[in-house]
Amino acid sequence: MSSSKPPRIAFQGEKGAFSQQAVRQLLGERTEVVPCQTFEDVFVRLRDKQVAAAVIPIENTLAGSVHENYDHLLHFNFEICGETNVRINHNLIAAPGVRFRDLRRVFSHPVALNQCLKFFSRNPKIQKEPFYDTAGSVKMVLEENLKDAAGIGSAVAAEIYGGTILRRSLEDDRRNFTRFFLLRRPEDARRQRPQAARNREWKITLVFSTRNVPGSLFRALSAVALRDINLAKIESRPLRGRPWEYMFYLDLLGRTDEVRVQKALGHLEELADFLRVLGCYPKGD
Amino acid sequence: MSSSKPPRIAFQGEKGAFSQQAVRQLLGERTEVVPCQTFEDVFVRLRDKQVAAAVIPIENTLAGSVHENYDHLLHFNFEICGETNVRINHNLIAAPGVRFRDLRRVFSHPVALNQCLKFFSRNPKIQKEPFYDTAGSVKMVLEENLKDAAGIGSAVAAEIYGGTILRRSLEDDRRNFTRFFLLRRPEDARRQRPQAARNREWKITLVFSTRNVPGSLFRALSAVALRDINLAKIESRPLRGRPWEYMFYLDLLGRTDEVRVQKALGHLEELADFLRVLGCYPKGD
Repeated sequence: MSSSKPPRIAFQGEKGAFSQQAVRQLLGERTEVVPCQTFEDVFVRLRDKQVAAAVIPIENTLAGSVHENYDHLLHFNFEICGETNVRINHNLIAAPGVRFRDLRRVFSHPVALNQCLKFFSRNPKIQKEPFYDTAGSVKMVLEENLKDAAGIGSAVAAEIYGGTILRRSLEDDRRNFTRFFLLRRPEDARRQRPQAARNREWKITLVFSTRNVPGSLFRALSAVALRDINLAKIESRPLRGRPWEYMFYLDLLGRTDEVRVQKALGHLEELADFLRVLGCYPKGD
Repeated sequence: MSSSKPPRIAFQGEKGAFSQQAVRQLLGERTEVVPCQTFEDVFVRLRDKQVAAAVIPIENTLAGSVHENYDHLLHFNFEICGETNVRINHNLIAAPGVRFRDLRRVFSHPVALNQCLKFFSRNPKIQKEPFYDTAGSVKMVLEENLKDAAGIGSAVAAEIYGGTILRRSLEDDRRNFTRFFLLRRPEDARRQRPQAARNREWKITLVFSTRNVPGSLFRALSAVALRDINLAKIESRPLRGRPWEYMFYLDLLGRTDEVRVQKALGHLEELADFLRVLGCYPKGD
């Protein structure tokens, strides 16, 4: 890829989606974003080398893990090269010149509308109108130049579509964050791996399965715990078509080039039926 | 409550939602359902004794855990008295007399529409139309007697609103199940506890937290694993406002009246900062 061309980065959603905010936090302003309809599209484009990298949501503090993306991480062969947390901030965005008191309808994704119920009960004259997606509602309100309507979306959406933010942080619960992963093809990940700065914490995400006998998870965790490696997240997920068997996803604090981590991974490999390290990356803010 | 009156059961969503299917599987046909706007409403109605029980979704095989409901389980004081799994089956439902070839628009919740993308790409003349909720889209199509439109919802919704099912199982992925809990107030749970049949497996759901030192989860699991009690699910959830501290939700196989389980819970209580048993109930199908 020529150094003068910005890298193409795939994400799911319309331009201005929260995923685009994650792209900026991870890679800066100089990217060409490639919006995709589904998460699977995002992975396929990365596999087919139509993009240099992809950014996907992996968990939200209110809604939990995005299991579909954990499944894609298993089925495709990419590396997690970075993570970032995006504050999900619902802004009320209208066409320039439209005033708050003109509003009678607010469009957005139903999940976003339902995260702003207090706003709607304080403003009974304003109707909730379900729409496909948050950024898409802002785009539509601006393109149709609606005089009595607004969309709910990110600040990036307001900027991209030229909207005015009439109110910020409409959400009922401000502790709404989404964690995103940056993915690359393994050969590119190796080439672009950041230096392990001593003052920066690193994380490792891995997935493993064990036979379903009592204590099998406990034994597997011993490989990590007895080496004083800290666990940042654990989640179990049923293996499809194999009742009572599970995949476990772990986030560890550490780097794969540390000896104690290498020993722990070797030990875990002995105890697990299946083990794959999905990536080792600097911890996000 | 008089035995002649059917018990009132709260759930989130419109009549005909998948939660209503769960109510039937858990309690049979003889109930009076009380649809609520939000999950919080469901919990408040149960607390305020406006209903005898509540039915809530707790996890979906594709979308993962419903974290909001795990949080409500912590903040309210109810007991989990049962569980059931509902197959999420997206049916195309229209007014009587409407034929498949008349359809130009299909309404439903965006999550449901996005789970039926193959259907829409095979039928390009049919537009997806986002709506508030699945059962609500069926209700609207029937009430307005639309001649060119259908909703996507459950078979129960078709039955309740008098719709015709034009196509069954529109969903791209058939492995779409949601697990529901039956909740009661503690005093009612004790009165109505089912007998522990020998041929039936039981589950215990509990939540605990530990200080964030390496190995603390490992030590806590030893209380369970070293007594050969099987773990059916584990999930970690960040403690709000306390970075790097977690709540762990466990599902164990067993009953709280077994001696080895009582010893395990006592041991876990020693090791944890906080422990609460949320319920002990017969395993669902």
